[in-house]
Amino acid sequence: MTGASPIAPGEVWLVGAGPGDPDLLTRKAEKLIRAADIVFYDALVGPGILDLIPHGTEQVSVGKRAGRHSKDQDTINDLIVRAALAGRRVVRLKGGDPSIFGRSMEEMAALARHGVAARICPGITAASAAAASASISLTLRGLARKLLFVTAHVREGEILDLDWDALADPGATLAVYMGKSSAGMIARRLMASGLAAATPVLAIENASLPDERIVRTRLDLLEIAARALGSGPALLLIGDAVGAASPISGASAAVRAPARSGGR
Amino acid sequence: MTGASPIAPGEVWLVGAGPGDPDLLTRKAEKLIRAADIVFYDALVGPGILDLIPHGTEQVSVGKRAGRHSKDQDTINDLIVRAALAGRRVVRLKGGDPSIFGRSMEEMAALARHGVAARICPGITAASAAAASASISLTLRGLARKLLFVTAHVREGEILDLDWDALADPGATLAVYMGKSSAGMIARRLMASGLAAATPVLAIENASLPDERIVRTRLDLLEIAARALGSGPALLLIGDAVGAASPISGASAAVRAPARSGGR
Repeated sequence: MTGASPIAPGEVWLVGAGPGDPDLLTRKAEKLIRAADIVFYDALVGPGILDLIPHGTEQVSVGKRAGRHSKDQDTINDLIVRAALAGRRVVRLKGGDPSIFGRSMEEMAALARHGVAARICPGITAASAAAASASISLTLRGLARKLLFVTAHVREGEILDLDWDALADPGATLAVYMGKSSAGMIARRLMASGLAAATPVLAIENASLPDERIVRTRLDLLEIAARALGSGPALLLIGDAVGAASPISGASAAVRAPARSGGR
Repeated sequence: MTGASPIAPGEVWLVGAGPGDPDLLTRKAEKLIRAADIVFYDALVGPGILDLIPHGTEQVSVGKRAGRHSKDQDTINDLIVRAALAGRRVVRLKGGDPSIFGRSMEEMAALARHGVAARICPGITAASAAAASASISLTLRGLARKLLFVTAHVREGEILDLDWDALADPGATLAVYMGKSSAGMIARRLMASGLAAATPVLAIENASLPDERIVRTRLDLLEIAARALGSGPALLLIGDAVGAASPISGASAAVRAPARSGGR
């Protein structure tokens, strides 16, 4: 082990790559990437971030992208364990924050079973990045004192079974990760559970990237508005705080209008 | 405006400083800090982060620290507006993420009223940093599909009035910001609303800093355990996912034991 390296040989760091903009990587994540012998990365990790990996560092894609099959979790675990047991300095780069819908524990458990030391470096989660891009706050005194994160991602064949009554909370901001394809169903369920049809919604695709797209709409128009999005990962932000943006950002004027879309 | 600067003269950036470790600042936040003419900062922004501010850049503390009175929000707004209207490049540095319990909208609205352009740079929120330090995930397939953020901070004279029934969700991880002084009350209310007494809890003080302290306990022992913490800002993480750490981190063994404390 060289004294200067933040990674010991045989050690694995699960590193949050944030939403995609390489500038939203933490300084720590950048140091870890530069110190690694090998980097395993997800499809959601942006190309600008991969550009930070030094030449000569081995890069292994373990994620799936539209149509291409991903390596299954056991295979990923096996690759990472083997690299660590070979004494390499390993970075496992994950989109967003490893602790929020990052399935980190499956990999941590596999590493632990093989006696491999593993640590986590946090990342900017998509909800934080999307709120910053849209110039809103996810919490708001008197309006949204609670923040709720759920994912609409389900395994193939599974039905999205969330506790809709608990999610339909007018005093909360609800962030739905991977919510685009289920947007219509989510809106209908929330309204059936009592959330107002006029509740403001932001749908953000590719948060923080050059092709970021922010659609401002309301719950009853969400299904139509979501069709304006492309094929990138998208987050839904739902709640009154989402409509309370400062006038200068232009959000207040647009938030009640149906399905207006555009960049920031 | 110099072409290279990420801040235009007269522009304000609300910048998330993250949990305290300067390495958990984003690359973007660092660039903004280095480009500012003046930096207004909260008490929760760590000294290591202030060290990144170049000599010659004006630094203004606008936060409170134990006993010392803080500048009130109107005064802070006024200072920031005046700096912007004087054509300076302004960074408003806030602990954590500006969009999560950061009261950003009060400042954004004040800036908008004066026609000042303002933007947000996200930061690592305390819950992400604490989870990384403790080697846990805040969400866990089949165990914690939902993540809930609330703050126990109330204005002087106010009573902490949260919807305890909604928070007592065995399928969620609950993150309580500023939860130390109300820890006993929070535990009692959650148990009264049906959350199991044995529910694992992590109390994390000064997440990511050298004096970080992680106390692993369970809901019915939280009040006693919280007394082991010092005077730094603390976060409570409550839920079964919190107890599901990988064996190698040592968390599984400790999580059922009463009031064990220590570093990572």
